[in-house]
Amino acid sequence: MLKTPAIVVNLKTYLETTGKKALELAKVMERVSSETGVQMAICPQAADLRLVAENSNVPVFAQHFDVLKPGAGTGMTLPETVADAGACGTLVNHSEHRLTLADIDWCVQKAKALKLDTIVCTNNVATSAAAAALKPYMVAVEPPELIGGDISVTSADPAVVSGSVDAVRKVDEKVLVLCGAGVKNGKDVRGAIELGSAGVLLASGVAKAKNWEEVLMDLAKGAVE
Amino acid sequence: MLKTPAIVVNLKTYLETTGKKALELAKVMERVSSETGVQMAICPQAADLRLVAENSNVPVFAQHFDVLKPGAGTGMTLPETVADAGACGTLVNHSEHRLTLADIDWCVQKAKALKLDTIVCTNNVATSAAAAALKPYMVAVEPPELIGGDISVTSADPAVVSGSVDAVRKVDEKVLVLCGAGVKNGKDVRGAIELGSAGVLLASGVAKAKNWEEVLMDLAKGAVE
Amino acid sequence: MLKTPAIVVNLKTYLETTGKKALELAKVMERVSSETGVQMAICPQAADLRLVAENSNVPVFAQHFDVLKPGAGTGMTLPETVADAGACGTLVNHSEHRLTLADIDWCVQKAKALKLDTIVCTNNVATSAAAAALKPYMVAVEPPELIGGDISVTSADPAVVSGSVDAVRKVDEKVLVLCGAGVKNGKDVRGAIELGSAGVLLASGVAKAKNWEEVLMDLAKGAVE
Amino acid sequence: MLKTPAIVVNLKTYLETTGKKALELAKVMERVSSETGVQMAICPQAADLRLVAENSNVPVFAQHFDVLKPGAGTGMTLPETVADAGACGTLVNHSEHRLTLADIDWCVQKAKALKLDTIVCTNNVATSAAAAALKPYMVAVEPPELIGGDISVTSADPAVVSGSVDAVRKVDEKVLVLCGAGVKNGKDVRGAIELGSAGVLLASGVAKAKNWEEVLMDLAKGAVE
Repeated sequence: MLKTPAIVVNLKTYLETTGKKALELAKVMERVSSETGVQMAICPQAADLRLVAENSNVPVFAQHFDVLKPGAGTGMTLPETVADAGACGTLVNHSEHRLTLADIDWCVQKAKALKLDTIVCTNNVATSAAAAALKPYMVAVEPPELIGGDISVTSADPAVVSGSVDAVRKVDEKVLVLCGAGVKNGKDVRGAIELGSAGVLLASGVAKAKNWEEVLMDLAKGAVE
Repeated sequence: MLKTPAIVVNLKTYLETTGKKALELAKVMERVSSETGVQMAICPQAADLRLVAENSNVPVFAQHFDVLKPGAGTGMTLPETVADAGACGTLVNHSEHRLTLADIDWCVQKAKALKLDTIVCTNNVATSAAAAALKPYMVAVEPPELIGGDISVTSADPAVVSGSVDAVRKVDEKVLVLCGAGVKNGKDVRGAIELGSAGVLLASGVAKAKNWEEVLMDLAKGAVE
Repeated sequence: MLKTPAIVVNLKTYLETTGKKALELAKVMERVSSETGVQMAICPQAADLRLVAENSNVPVFAQHFDVLKPGAGTGMTLPETVADAGACGTLVNHSEHRLTLADIDWCVQKAKALKLDTIVCTNNVATSAAAAALKPYMVAVEPPELIGGDISVTSADPAVVSGSVDAVRKVDEKVLVLCGAGVKNGKDVRGAIELGSAGVLLASGVAKAKNWEEVLMDLAKGAVE
Repeated sequence: MLKTPAIVVNLKTYLETTGKKALELAKVMERVSSETGVQMAICPQAADLRLVAENSNVPVFAQHFDVLKPGAGTGMTLPETVADAGACGTLVNHSEHRLTLADIDWCVQKAKALKLDTIVCTNNVATSAAAAALKPYMVAVEPPELIGGDISVTSADPAVVSGSVDAVRKVDEKVLVLCGAGVKNGKDVRGAIELGSAGVLLASGVAKAKNWEEVLMDLAKGAVE
């Protein structure tokens, strides 16, 4: 389980954070997290999970696993393999890898059986409430039209964050809510927390930054203000 | 809006209920519904929607429509086309055509804009609760392992029905619950109602029956007992 | 079998050619084809196949069918249903509905069994050659980047047309080649024929035109010049 | 490039060959290959590519990569990442992960740009010929109904092997043909070679064997007889 507020960094498939560079970023996150006391987590590509998990102390989340039993499934990502590679959790249903409702439910259950924490991504208040009914560890609401953009969800659409927090709490008060899309700096993190969320999920804001340490320090300051 | 309890018949892609035979079945349903006062609805294939809707009085539901704006989407089923062909509603997320959570939400909203009623199919209590958060007209819970089988969900797994009714009511008491899988006769319909559901969704039990009228009369009796 | 050169009009999911308007366009195509002697064919949405096929003489092609046996497959398009609704052929693997290689092969075989002609869409010379190895009736090459645009493939990339004609002929000289993407007028049809193709596949150029008859007459003139 | 005949072992998602056990198997393959002079290659899961590639000398093939540019694609397998992790090639279009025709073409081209060899899987003679038109390094024909079974394709359906060899050669004589499905022992390898193929692609026959070394030695003997 992560401490909150948490800063979760999704490496997507950026070349800037592939392979050894994923590990380099993890080491910077480890340092900043240790210095500031702010919880961080990193989501590398499947092929980089083991490299990062074995060589850093930052909690490692997979970006996805497939609905799959061991055996067949050539080219797919087996839940058990993600755990074997050292992940302690996984994103589920990211906007770039949507799953069916039945499959989200399967993933949350399978993750529990493997002692992996789940962060289920959603796109609006209604789907946040729906996801909460599946009892994941966290829901991360990210309006797709703001993902990868310059304006943080906390400024562009604060109601989707506070609305998701309320709706999720109403369905199951144990489920935490992250928010994401356009999050880039400490002010956005601060805004996320003030809207009731337990932290942020971000990607390009860190992955494509010229100076990872600078950006991470700023994000962390937003979390402890 | 359908009166409840309702008997909803999904024609899937059975050759026994394709084309003119879909219309023949609709005419039998019209007659039985009229004689018994029991609400019925029919779900033909997309290519048969207009034929059935223009020539019978049974409410016609599409089996599915795609997440799609007019224009592109060669070979897909446009929501507007389903409405134009005469449907008054649609199944969403049938176990043979699962959708992502975000897409189920899109379909429910789009259907409302087009004044189409939605029956969102689910597979267990958790996904029924999740679907209810999207505020569809109805949720139809069908455990996949019982679909097409000989034992009705109402006997094989009554808890999934009563559990879904409770969970859905807790999320949104206006959403009705159907149940399905293995439903074949009046006794199953009676069981469904006693478990708190608003009717049944069935397919092979009617479509592949030798005598449609006999089966439909029996189902209707279960609804009015 | 169509006479060549042929003008095949894909209605996609344009509202301008949905339902009764699909039939209206078919009647205009019937008239222009009859007056000019130029072969035409129309590809309506699944829900409109029967309406158009039963009320016009223009050959009707489905836009797609699914890889599916009768029975299950709620919301999908059964090959047998397409035939039952009056289609004499089908597009396969349109750029808006790509299929796996194995499924294209299945569709071509299933269509032959149902006496439906197949037009397999491709995106470049290599995939045109590959498609020809599956022995469809026709291959229609359409570079995706030109689809829906203002410049005809015959001007923008004549080599993909002549290259596909050559490559297909080398693999199987009985397979005919259409071309499409940006085709809008008689000059484009003329260019397509001069590049060795057996006609054109087009969509918005007809479907969204203000005056269908005018556009179709112009296209037909390009075919008989 | 592999020497031929080659024995390519797909680890699928077997727990028996996940993580450190994938590397153990690679070390056994390394030893047997070295002792017998028979070319081998191994296809681990994405999460195990780096572990196997960095710690053994057996050529490592990915099981799949996605059609994807760097950046977005959370949870997907980036071609560049597969190369970065140490793969020298990749399976494409395995029967458990079929791709569209256009995407197979994309993968073959992308692999060439990254200097990765491609083994495109197919299901019959027609699709083998089609795949050859895309100019991959190898085509591996595997009738799906025989995959995972007890009878080798070389006994159950020798014509699909020799037919694919002939059809591929006719389209492009530089493309090599492997065969697979039910392959378990040296006799099957021998049969594959006698039917004109350049080796075998197999999975459970090795992965689930109690004694990897014994099975691999037997397979290798079939290749050098």
